[in-house]
Amino acid sequence: MLGLMQDSPLLISGLIEFAARHHHDTEIVSRRVEGDLHRTTYAQVGARARQVANALDRLGLAFSDRVGTLAWNGYRHLELYYGVSGSGRVVHTINPRLSPEQVVWIANHAEDQVLCFDMSFLPIIKAAWSKCTTVKHWIALCDADALPADTGIPGLRSYEAWIGGESEQYAWPSFDERSAAALCYTSGTTGNPKGVLYSHRSTLLHAWGIALPDSLGISARDCVLPVVPMFHVNAWGLPYAAAMTGTKLVFPGAALDGKSVYELIEAEKVTMSAGVPTVWLMLLNHLKANDLQFSTMTRTVIGGSACPPAMIKSFRDDYDVTVLHAWGMTEMSPVGTVCKLKLKHLEMDPAAQLGVLIKQGRSVFGAEMKIVDPDGRELPWDGATSGDLLVRGPWIVSSYFKGEGGDPLVDGWFPTGDVATIDPDGFLQITDRSKDVIKSGGEWISSIDVENIAVAHPAVAMAACIAIAHPKWDERPMLVVVKKPGAELSREAMLAHFEGKLAKWQVPDDVVFVEAIPLGATGKMQKNKLREQFKDYRLPGA
Amino acid sequence: MLGLMQDSPLLISGLIEFAARHHHDTEIVSRRVEGDLHRTTYAQVGARARQVANALDRLGLAFSDRVGTLAWNGYRHLELYYGVSGSGRVVHTINPRLSPEQVVWIANHAEDQVLCFDMSFLPIIKAAWSKCTTVKHWIALCDADALPADTGIPGLRSYEAWIGGESEQYAWPSFDERSAAALCYTSGTTGNPKGVLYSHRSTLLHAWGIALPDSLGISARDCVLPVVPMFHVNAWGLPYAAAMTGTKLVFPGAALDGKSVYELIEAEKVTMSAGVPTVWLMLLNHLKANDLQFSTMTRTVIGGSACPPAMIKSFRDDYDVTVLHAWGMTEMSPVGTVCKLKLKHLEMDPAAQLGVLIKQGRSVFGAEMKIVDPDGRELPWDGATSGDLLVRGPWIVSSYFKGEGGDPLVDGWFPTGDVATIDPDGFLQITDRSKDVIKSGGEWISSIDVENIAVAHPAVAMAACIAIAHPKWDERPMLVVVKKPGAELSREAMLAHFEGKLAKWQVPDDVVFVEAIPLGATGKMQKNKLREQFKDYRLPGA
Repeated sequence: MLGLMQDSPLLISGLIEFAARHHHDTEIVSRRVEGDLHRTTYAQVGARARQVANALDRLGLAFSDRVGTLAWNGYRHLELYYGVSGSGRVVHTINPRLSPEQVVWIANHAEDQVLCFDMSFLPIIKAAWSKCTTVKHWIALCDADALPADTGIPGLRSYEAWIGGESEQYAWPSFDERSAAALCYTSGTTGNPKGVLYSHRSTLLHAWGIALPDSLGISARDCVLPVVPMFHVNAWGLPYAAAMTGTKLVFPGAALDGKSVYELIEAEKVTMSAGVPTVWLMLLNHLKANDLQFSTMTRTVIGGSACPPAMIKSFRDDYDVTVLHAWGMTEMSPVGTVCKLKLKHLEMDPAAQLGVLIKQGRSVFGAEMKIVDPDGRELPWDGATSGDLLVRGPWIVSSYFKGEGGDPLVDGWFPTGDVATIDPDGFLQITDRSKDVIKSGGEWISSIDVENIAVAHPAVAMAACIAIAHPKWDERPMLVVVKKPGAELSREAMLAHFEGKLAKWQVPDDVVFVEAIPLGATGKMQKNKLREQFKDYRLPGA
Repeated sequence: MLGLMQDSPLLISGLIEFAARHHHDTEIVSRRVEGDLHRTTYAQVGARARQVANALDRLGLAFSDRVGTLAWNGYRHLELYYGVSGSGRVVHTINPRLSPEQVVWIANHAEDQVLCFDMSFLPIIKAAWSKCTTVKHWIALCDADALPADTGIPGLRSYEAWIGGESEQYAWPSFDERSAAALCYTSGTTGNPKGVLYSHRSTLLHAWGIALPDSLGISARDCVLPVVPMFHVNAWGLPYAAAMTGTKLVFPGAALDGKSVYELIEAEKVTMSAGVPTVWLMLLNHLKANDLQFSTMTRTVIGGSACPPAMIKSFRDDYDVTVLHAWGMTEMSPVGTVCKLKLKHLEMDPAAQLGVLIKQGRSVFGAEMKIVDPDGRELPWDGATSGDLLVRGPWIVSSYFKGEGGDPLVDGWFPTGDVATIDPDGFLQITDRSKDVIKSGGEWISSIDVENIAVAHPAVAMAACIAIAHPKWDERPMLVVVKKPGAELSREAMLAHFEGKLAKWQVPDDVVFVEAIPLGATGKMQKNKLREQFKDYRLPGA
């Protein structure tokens, strides 16, 4: 017997209409590529999203057709999120840090019909357009008069000219909530990128999940600055959760350096931000160098890579900002866990609390998890036993777009590729990526543990620990270090720094200093490139 | 095209398994009918809910069969919530404040197969059992040795004996998330009670909605005491939302007087409570009489009836407790709006903020609303125009159990029977129940406005404003007042109290002092009974 509740599908159009009506004057502030600060409201974003929907109808786009974007965080990107998905099409966010060849490959694989791009990415589009075989319409996200005359891109139009004449009224269609809404490709380290196809249902359930007090906890009394890009897993879902909760949004555009981000936080009275550790490193360096403090920001979400404990401590002790350490994946919409203390932790001293806060946190309801041994047997939640981490739930991938890579699930669970422990209170700690773990003499060494200790050294700007082949131990750890500008650090001093912090056999066999560590399109260290670079390296004594 | 996300139905069993695993040692504290304080945990509630499910299987109950409960707020009731719904049956909560005849009518209409009751309701069951034609199994919520030998109720068993031998393992079934999960009858003032049949989907979406920071905002750092009964709209969804968020629960059982509630709040370090205004009146009186303060409670949810502004102010100014003024209905699972300030209100002075906080608040995403004129035309959100309030969304009723009362919807919207204004910021203010509004000479007088002013008088304990027939004006307001014990108050002093607070024509024509105002089964004033009592009353000058 079914319940007797209204059959209301969960649709993305419902989010923007809710925000436009209940939070009509709440601001959306964007630093534009043009350099200025632009101010709009949910009511206006709603009206312009409806113009986008009308413009797409006029282009004749069918239900589920893909509209690509190559854009920074900003109000026009937000309007596309809602206008494209709300009208039943699929918004396909492309990472502009990819090479033009990769952009072409992804746009063709997705069969994008329209491609909207920020003017700063015109060089990519100029290099790519003639090879994008499915794109029929090119839209530059700018005013009509900002459009260069001689781009060579056929039929190129400005966004403002494109939507300007359209009506602000639009009857959003109703359809199956499981319909495709957004597409994001993972920057896999091997093989071709794979597309994750989010649904309206998954997007709304995820928005509820991340807005909860024990997740990101956002409300109409917050002002959120997502540094995490809208081209990367929908800025962790914040553009959706913010509309659901009437939260003011501040978009940093392309200016992600410490000074720009800090000034925007202060000027707009930001209460929460979100991004990867590398961005916060730049911000903290700027604060330290200029002896600054935050006046309104109380918390920041850090994910994408494990956040070094030293950073969590510094945010808390030096700047009175709570780090919400989070973990997830593109395949998970992306949020799986967020680290928030429980009632029982509140009476602990700050040092003991830090021991909890450095973990990636506990499951948001909706993201179920387990750890297993190599035979798939479930492992205990004792905070010590580490195993392969698997997840399942309504906002977790079932398969990739067009079936790429086959069926990724194992008995209905998605293998994350992470190795982790879970403690009795459900706090997850990522030990390593399964491919980054160093297998030394039958024991596993966590590359993340080694890196966390390394970056706590005052002379170290960045550090990667990778496995080097070893005749006796199979693999041994080596540390690749980027020194801070002007800092002095010897191999011996670096190794001495590990004394007492790691078991002797876990300490790297060698240290190599480099100018830079390669970063991927989402800002993560590309350890596979380092492994390739050092594949013939001979460790001392090996 | 569908998205490629996992097909995970939203099921109530998922909530208790999540809590049992991620918040295994979080406490559930219950004051029992036996008088003692009982302590358990989510892990144990989960294990015993599985025992309930096995016991129901053993009884041969089919999918969607109804299991009635007649019980206070407590851990056994919570186990039934999860064991019954989780295993695919429907938990049917019956209001024990109804007469035995009404209980019989409802149990028969629902076709309850099992009826579980607290020992304090044994007299009702003794009077009712022989007329409950569908109930095959009677379960007393007590230990085996607490069961009287000679009840005359055939096959009566104690709950502990019933589940004691069952396994704590159970494979929760998976099924359509729209399946029926819980049934609650509205105490309609006219006609027979009507059953609202909640689904697993509506229950989980509502739980996400009410747990949000701008709704009740509960987390694993909270301790919540639901005074609102579990037999009334599932204690406003708190038993579900608490499991979703790992919140400690404190159940007051039958002891709802000010002293008992206060002592439990202090002893268990409660951070949030929830209930109807009449309960809080008792609590505030106790605090005032004994010069007490709260040490841990920071907020309390007040709904069920409009909360008098004086109570909101007293909680804030005298006790540093934020009232979360909420509005909803049995037909709405029940939460529709909660009053939380927005960013723009934070810089207002306390008096201006109070002007916002006395309203019933803004929509939780998922509960859409509109106000219309008598012809169904939508009215503006200007904070002044009042109209009939309609709602829609995934946790709002589509029809009543067995089709009672026909199709309640108007163009897909549920008419609430409330008259309200909505301001430009989306804040709802209930002006009146449409049947309580006083229609005087073509103008409407809000009975709630009159009552709010009346109860702000220090000598008034309770007040109801009702319409009395009038030869010239059609209807005129009359005030029915219960004085505080020992307080002095004359008719003239009461009427003088309205001067300058209402327009002259809105002031009641008369005041009648009574010993008590009849309260319904959910603690609301039964103004229909007063209207009946005073139906031949002659107003002065009429």
